[in-house]
Parts: sequence; C-alpha cells; structure tokens
Amino acid sequence: MKLSKQNLAQRADHIYDVLIVGGGPAGLSAGIYLQRYLLSTLIIDKGKARSFWMQELHNYLGLPSDTPGRDLLKQGKDHYLSVDGDYLNAYVESVVEEENIFVVKVRIGRNKPTYATFRTRYLIAASGIIDNLPTLDNMQNVFDYAGHNLHVCLICDGYEMRGQRVGVFGGSENSLEVAFPLGWFTPHITLFTNGAFEVGAELHHRLNTEGYTLVEKPIKQFIGENHQMTGVELKNGEVVELDAGLISMGSKYHADYLKGIELDYQGGNLITDKMNRTSHPRIFAIGDLKVGMNQVIVAAADGALAATQIWRDIRRVEGRRSNSSNIFSTEKVA
Amino acid sequence: MKLSKQNLAQRADHIYDVLIVGGGPAGLSAGIYLQRYLLSTLIIDKGKARSFWMQELHNYLGLPSDTPGRDLLKQGKDHYLSVDGDYLNAYVESVVEEENIFVVKVRIGRNKPTYATFRTRYLIAASGIIDNLPTLDNMQNVFDYAGHNLHVCLICDGYEMRGQRVGVFGGSENSLEVAFPLGWFTPHITLFTNGAFEVGAELHHRLNTEGYTLVEKPIKQFIGENHQMTGVELKNGEVVELDAGLISMGSKYHADYLKGIELDYQGGNLITDKMNRTSHPRIFAIGDLKVGMNQVIVAAADGALAATQIWRDIRRVEGRRSNSSNIFSTEKVA
Repeated sequence: MKLSKQNLAQRADHIYDVLIVGGGPAGLSAGIYLQRYLLSTLIIDKGKARSFWMQELHNYLGLPSDTPGRDLLKQGKDHYLSVDGDYLNAYVESVVEEENIFVVKVRIGRNKPTYATFRTRYLIAASGIIDNLPTLDNMQNVFDYAGHNLHVCLICDGYEMRGQRVGVFGGSENSLEVAFPLGWFTPHITLFTNGAFEVGAELHHRLNTEGYTLVEKPIKQFIGENHQMTGVELKNGEVVELDAGLISMGSKYHADYLKGIELDYQGGNLITDKMNRTSHPRIFAIGDLKVGMNQVIVAAADGALAATQIWRDIRRVEGRRSNSSNIFSTEKVA
Repeated sequence: MKLSKQNLAQRADHIYDVLIVGGGPAGLSAGIYLQRYLLSTLIIDKGKARSFWMQELHNYLGLPSDTPGRDLLKQGKDHYLSVDGDYLNAYVESVVEEENIFVVKVRIGRNKPTYATFRTRYLIAASGIIDNLPTLDNMQNVFDYAGHNLHVCLICDGYEMRGQRVGVFGGSENSLEVAFPLGWFTPHITLFTNGAFEVGAELHHRLNTEGYTLVEKPIKQFIGENHQMTGVELKNGEVVELDAGLISMGSKYHADYLKGIELDYQGGNLITDKMNRTSHPRIFAIGDLKVGMNQVIVAAADGALAATQIWRDIRRVEGRRSNSSNIFSTEKVA
C-alpha cells in the first residue's frame, strides 16, 4: 500500500523482509519479484529517478521505442502496488545495523519534514546515480534540452546521433574520451570544455587526427526550440550549430545513507556477485549503483536476480511461509 | 527486413556482423541493441519459443501482469524490424568455423524444405530450451492446460499457486525436489510419478514429513475445462482434485547446431562470462541456454550485454563505422 505520514503508524512494529532504497526500474522490478515471493517489501523513493528524465526508451524489449521513462516507472509502480508492496515517497538518511536488523531512518516531506524509522532484514540499494549537467548561468536552459536531444547515454542514444553534428560537453579531460566511441556513429564531433579545464597536447593531437573540433571557450547557452537543441552560443557571441549533444560530466552517486556500513566499492559503484549481493551478506545493490552497464533492461534484471537470491536465503532458513501471516494481504483462496 | 525463400539471394554475398539463433526475448533484445550499434544482424527463428506458450507474464517490468508471452515476442520482433534487422523463419542445422567466419546452414520450410547458407563474424546462441511435458496417451489433453494453470516455472508462478492444491508432475526422483521450494507457497502438494520411476525411502520420508502426498500410479488424463485444469484422473479411475499443476520434467536444449564446436557446458547450459561470452571468443550465449536464471527479463538483459560486448570488440578493431555502408539502411540525414 502507499504509505504516507497519515498511515505510517500501521507499520511501526513491522520488520520488513526487504527494504529497497530507490523506486527506479531496478527497485520496482525487485519489489515485484519479492512480493511475488511472499516477502514483505517496502520501496522508499525520493522521486526523480534518472529514468524519469528519459524522454524515450529506445531499447527496452517489450515497449515501443518512444516510451517515456516516466511511463515505465508508472507501470512498474502500479504493478508493484497491485501485488501489495509498500511504497513511500521519502529520503533515506541513514542505515544502521542492529543485531541482524537494519534500522533505516527516513525524512518525509521537504518543508516541515517529519522523520520515521523502519526495520528490515535485508536491504537493497537501488538508489542509482544522477548525471552531472553543464553549469551555465541559466540552468533552466540546460533542463530545457537534457533528456531530449541533449543526451547523457552513448549506448542508449548513439543510434539517434548517427551521422549528426554532435556536441560533446565534458567535465574533465578524461570525460572527453567518449568522443572516440561516439565516432563509431558520427564523424561530426565538436567537444566543449566550457572553459572549465585544460586539454593536454596528447588528447589535442588524437582529437585532431580524428577530425574532431575542440572548443575551449565558455558557453553562454544552448539554442533551439521545443526542447530540440540546435546549437551552442558561446560567451563571445560565436554560435556552433549542432543536431544533438552528449553530456559526459560524470555522475553523482546516491549512496550517502550507506556511509556507516563497510562495503566494497569500485569508484562510486558497489561491487556485487552475480546475484547482486554486495560484500555484506544482507545488502544487495542493483541498477546504476553497482558495477556494470547502466541500462534500464539490465537494472530490471538485476532486481529479479537480487530478489530471487534473497528469497532463497530466507527460504533456506524458514522453510515455508505458506501458512504464515506476516505479509499483509496475499492470501489467495483456492 | 523479413527474409524468405524469395528474397534470400539479396544476402548471398553478405557477411553479417552477428547471426542470432533464436528469436525469443534474449535474441530479440540482442538484435535491437546490435542494430542500434549499426551492426548488421540476422535473427533466425524456428518459431514456438518457450515464451510463446506463456499465457501471462506476471513479473516483467513495464508490462501489465496479464501480458501473453506472444505479445512480447510480437512487439520485440516489430521493434527489431523497425531498426532494419534481418529476420528469417528457419531451422539452423549446423555451424562451421572457416577462417574467423562462421558458416551457418539453415533449413527453410518443413515440407519441401530449401537450404541456405549464411556467413557471420559473431554468433549468438539464443535458441533456448523447451520444457518436457508429461507423456499421456492423448497429448492434446496436456497441451490444453500447459502454460495456463499447468505451470512449468516455480519462480514465475509460485505466487499464482499460493495456498492452492497443486499437483507436481515429475520426470525423475530428483525432479520431485521442486516440492520443497513450492512448499514456500502452499502446503497442499500432491506429487505424481505417472508410474514412470521409483521413489526411494529417503525422499518418501521427507515428503511424508512435510505432509505431501505421493501418487505413483499412471495418469489417464488431466480434467478441467477452458484451459483450467481442475484435477487428474488416474488410469484406475481415481480422481485427484487440484487447483493448479507444476511440471518438473527437465528440458530439451536447442543447441544441436553447436555440436561441431568445442564449448564449455555445465549440464546442458553453456558457461559464459558476465557479458555472456562463451569459451569461444566470438560465440555468445544468452537466455535459457546459458547457465543462470531462466526468466524473461534476465534473457532480455542478457541480450543487451552480449550485444554491447560484441560492439566493443568490433569497434576496437574497426574504429568507426559512421561513414561506411556495409549495413543496409540506417542512414540518418542530419
């Protein structure tokens, strides 16, 4: 059921089998599987998953290639609620382990927030990442195009950019390396540093060899209309015409709540085994937060794998749950 | 494009980047990704994928939980064709490696078949498995219920069977072990050997301890109507009333065409790395044919991973394809 400040008290004494941080594709898929395994599940979502911003999912089997990310999220959330999962819009502040139970502290609401605490046996970190965006004087100008033809994912949108004049917006010298795989799809590449960092002689040479253009001056704004970016205006007044953009500025990892627990990371990503278990036996990581490929279909499969492993773990200890009643309403009359 | 006997000649001299054996969820997802990587792809499908028989996909994120498997397959095939993939209904007879190219011999049509040969750089084995079914005198009686409430997948349909009176139809003593995880969902379990094999004292005892019933007499037929099985009639005339069934008789692996190539297997499943590469560097295996969990969403993610790794392999050698024309029609005018 959908939890809110009003009905939270009903779950005060409950120990969930699994608490999932993040209601994106990974978390929703895990939640659907877990509830179908008769495990009591709570998804806590802060809203605005990375996929919420995707205007078109082009490569998700089963969905038309112009399906907005938010439609997938809505379908998944309805599906999850239909199998009696608990869902709460809130922000997870911290997780503390107390005698094989995780105590999860959350903040509900932005203005006049209230705080609540949940308890769970297993934790799934599905809170993902969010892409860093170019910092311009008017950020609304960036939001107008990001997720439309100002892309953030080469794997997802390389095909859309084939043969186009593409601007790459980097956050560091390293991040500009994306130009080379992008070159698979189009030879017309202009790279922008926005005047924020230096590019060394070696990369200069490699870009030059490939015929790519490097623009190191500061950007004033993106130009275009109806969310279709058609170019970049520099602060010096020059305009560079483009058909599309690719942002390559790294990501922010939503994992602060795990700081109190020792886990193995590779960069910002959690290291997991093939069933998505982290170095802690009762913490799993799925979707963009774990090491692996950041794709919606992979995140959804991650959720299925983690849920299944947790079910196996719990089943091996408990044996059966067919007669028990510690899940809220899954009884089916034969 | 859809290939047939009539237009096959157009591809006679073509070397595909990737040939995919099997047009189920794994193969279709791989095909969509590959075409979007500008790699020329041929899917060869013999029809009647395992998922074609599934009446309802209950746990595929993004699709309503009563979506028939065949709807997913149709959507995926249309999607694949829309990105200019080649698709042929045929049966793959053999694969032979000749100087880094695989020569794939196929049979087209059942009556008066014709034969054709395709060439490809990479091969994806996505041909899956098919469940063995109980052998009754009238097989149509089995087909009437299989995929409806005569299930083949505990992970998929355990939830549907919760609290129900479930018959387990085994193919061997070992296969009856599925009763124990099924016991998570329901205590009302009757196991049927159909008189085909013996059950030893130890398993007898374990089943008895759990309160499960073992029926070792031969089955005459399933009874029910409108594809809803309501019980089993034994040859001796006894009737056992049931709400659902679970078939546990193993599977046939569709991998005969790989016999001429040395690959690492675990049982009938191909062993792969995390990007789904087999022990042969240019053969990948995805979906039910590889070691792992047999779930549609996992198969779809498998396809994305294999396709991406193949793209990386080819890109590292070729560098770019943005100006080339060895793919049929993916040009996009900027």
